[in-house]
Amino acid sequence: MTSIERIYQDIDAHFDAHLERVRTLVRQPSISGDGTGMAETAAMVAGLIREAGGTAEIVPTPGWPVVYGEIHAGAPKTLLVYGMYDVQPVAGEQWRVPDPFGGYLHDMPNLGQCLVNRGVANQKGPLASFFNTLLSFRAVGQPYPVNLKFMIEGEEELGSRNLPGFVTQNRERLKADYAYFAHFSQDPSGKVIMYLGVKGILFLELIARGGDWGGPTSRGIHGSNAVWLHSPTWLLLHALASMVTPDQKHVLIDGFYDDIIPPSAEDEALLERLITTFTPETQLGEYDVRRFKYDLTGVPLLRKYLYQPQLNIDGIISGYTGEGTKTLLPNEARAKIDIRMIQNMRPERMLQLVKDHLARHGYGDKIEVMVHDGYPPGKAGLSANPAAQAMLQAYRDLGFEPEIWPHLAGSAPFYLFTETLGIPIAMGGLGQGGRQHSPDEYATVEGIRICEKSIAAFLCNLPAK
Amino acid sequence: MTSIERIYQDIDAHFDAHLERVRTLVRQPSISGDGTGMAETAAMVAGLIREAGGTAEIVPTPGWPVVYGEIHAGAPKTLLVYGMYDVQPVAGEQWRVPDPFGGYLHDMPNLGQCLVNRGVANQKGPLASFFNTLLSFRAVGQPYPVNLKFMIEGEEELGSRNLPGFVTQNRERLKADYAYFAHFSQDPSGKVIMYLGVKGILFLELIARGGDWGGPTSRGIHGSNAVWLHSPTWLLLHALASMVTPDQKHVLIDGFYDDIIPPSAEDEALLERLITTFTPETQLGEYDVRRFKYDLTGVPLLRKYLYQPQLNIDGIISGYTGEGTKTLLPNEARAKIDIRMIQNMRPERMLQLVKDHLARHGYGDKIEVMVHDGYPPGKAGLSANPAAQAMLQAYRDLGFEPEIWPHLAGSAPFYLFTETLGIPIAMGGLGQGGRQHSPDEYATVEGIRICEKSIAAFLCNLPAK
Repeated sequence: MTSIERIYQDIDAHFDAHLERVRTLVRQPSISGDGTGMAETAAMVAGLIREAGGTAEIVPTPGWPVVYGEIHAGAPKTLLVYGMYDVQPVAGEQWRVPDPFGGYLHDMPNLGQCLVNRGVANQKGPLASFFNTLLSFRAVGQPYPVNLKFMIEGEEELGSRNLPGFVTQNRERLKADYAYFAHFSQDPSGKVIMYLGVKGILFLELIARGGDWGGPTSRGIHGSNAVWLHSPTWLLLHALASMVTPDQKHVLIDGFYDDIIPPSAEDEALLERLITTFTPETQLGEYDVRRFKYDLTGVPLLRKYLYQPQLNIDGIISGYTGEGTKTLLPNEARAKIDIRMIQNMRPERMLQLVKDHLARHGYGDKIEVMVHDGYPPGKAGLSANPAAQAMLQAYRDLGFEPEIWPHLAGSAPFYLFTETLGIPIAMGGLGQGGRQHSPDEYATVEGIRICEKSIAAFLCNLPAK
Repeated sequence: MTSIERIYQDIDAHFDAHLERVRTLVRQPSISGDGTGMAETAAMVAGLIREAGGTAEIVPTPGWPVVYGEIHAGAPKTLLVYGMYDVQPVAGEQWRVPDPFGGYLHDMPNLGQCLVNRGVANQKGPLASFFNTLLSFRAVGQPYPVNLKFMIEGEEELGSRNLPGFVTQNRERLKADYAYFAHFSQDPSGKVIMYLGVKGILFLELIARGGDWGGPTSRGIHGSNAVWLHSPTWLLLHALASMVTPDQKHVLIDGFYDDIIPPSAEDEALLERLITTFTPETQLGEYDVRRFKYDLTGVPLLRKYLYQPQLNIDGIISGYTGEGTKTLLPNEARAKIDIRMIQNMRPERMLQLVKDHLARHGYGDKIEVMVHDGYPPGKAGLSANPAAQAMLQAYRDLGFEPEIWPHLAGSAPFYLFTETLGIPIAMGGLGQGGRQHSPDEYATVEGIRICEKSIAAFLCNLPAK
């Protein structure tokens, strides 16, 4: 029996105990939004690192602390494990189990037995599975193939706002050869999906208020005054309308498309393969949408989806929005917008382009630009990425051929690894979990088991020197 | 002593009792928004009509009833008194008196002794004063100079939604020679302001939703999809932006300005006089606004204010508008807009122009147009309006020279008198009252007294045959 087979066997032999350890971690609430259980959970995660043979430290930040840990295995290479111990709030949600933090086992339609609990998919389930896997290495007397470092943050659900500072300040001790973020990669049909990167994002709020240029400055006033007084609402609408064509296909901000580069040869090859298993039209059905913005299909449509930046309005509000009528000339209008950035686009430059656009169109002194969030894309790649290669091989070792995406259409601050730290990163793990950020967040029990096996294979597949 | 002097004397002699009658009416809550005290108040108003020598009927409508009454004085001419017995809600408001329906007498800064009570200005105070005045006619044995009809509605604060139906169905018995709406016409400085009409309004809600054209149809979805899916928010913004120039000075809806007529010679003369007592720049200070939309002053600026139609955005909402960030592609966007209409503009035609505009720009099947409210302007005029002449003379009889406005910049359904019934209408009365729709609504005690005298003079000044 190979060493990996002995680890698989130990996972199976002690799976009841492993599952209990997952339940213990997810039952402990850790809601970063209101602070519930954050200190307790950080301490639990530090305990898991120590139990696996390491040292752990709860490092303060201006927000919730980062749990940092190290396990020296005497190996030539080091893996930096990134994770999160905070979860989304549950207030106001209706769950099918009596308590979102009850650690309930529950049969879910078409999924079988599941652990239904806030955070079990995102991301405390995969995190606990990682530590379970380490236990099995120790149980069978198998040394860890790599040294381990841990950076487990408590503010992922708040936009990882203090993580860039932590990474910059701890650049030295975060040095590693590979990085890893564990998650359940199988969709409800069982298909394994592998993402090799993320888009960047610039999330802004544009605020138009009355001022020296005109309009009410301190409060909304009677709507009949709109005939001789300016409206901040009209101002914001015209400013926004000047940024995107009416067909919504082109952004009109000068320089918006300047920095983008076309898909690499590797990406193009991935797209050609991706389109054999991914059907964009199926997505339409899941979203209750009847047509795409473009009259395209196949790879050309995917190219738009993945390689075109966009300016989206996430929300807009001004004036009276209640029932019935009230005639009002508002003194303020606000829009939340996000710009998705693809390779080579930079949030700092994009912010400047937005400001330049507003200034050029006469809105420079009338509209405030508030930056909520901003980071560049994170592109991990495959052929030159030993961590992703190790994960891909782990999937294949366990009999799965993943659907590989050059990157996710969404955003996450993975540039901290790909760029700030310069470490190849892999995201993944087998297993099914879902309903993140929603009631009835779940992971299948069998998914937790196979997740642990895939993590074992991943660790063994990492180049050891 | 003339008969009017004897009436003034009776008002003074019995003013304590008159004031008590005003307090009794305003202390009775009558909140049409939630129904509080509506039946009781309608009965009280019917009682006041009967006490003045008339017959009264509480006429059901699909909403709150109209109190209808008649007093036959054997006179050749008849005055239709329009009024309202409902008031604004008080929930959540902080008042300087212990109870907004307590009938408290309270010294207000710069105003002296006031009756502070919801509805005392708008409009139960002037209404009660009218009935007090009638009592004084009877007390001194003076027959009413005109027959009286009463139409006192209970839904003014709900937009008078059943009044047009009532007027149409009761056209015959509402026949009269003059109409009147009592209100306190003096501003806080004591200046008497007289309005000879109102603008019309069309209040619409434009609703963009995902549909066959594209966009999410049932719920907001992840914002990263904006790159390949349409946004109802962008759609609504572009539709609105196509309706008004970026400088907010011109409406771009075809035909928008077609029906308007320039100010009449009478109106032009009124404007020339108005500008000697009304300074638009003073208005800016009161509104906390620093400049007008137009680089104009004096009469040219007043012409814009009073004789130009406008399209205002009263409110707009779409997507995520809470704290911080959430990337969302919304499935719906809604805007409340109002169009202020001046003489010769019609709401039915304006609605068609808006729909035509949307259709012409490709939004016809994508944006729903919901009509909340709509009525044409109501222009009473002065030289050919014996009711307004009688009110003007009443002011002068009591030593006041009013500031006369050709019409109000705001809107009210006075077309029901000027157009549906074809009766010249006067609005007015002396006295100071304010903070309508706000906490600490008040009327000065002396204002109630002089209001009653001005109503007596008005009735005596109406042409008796």
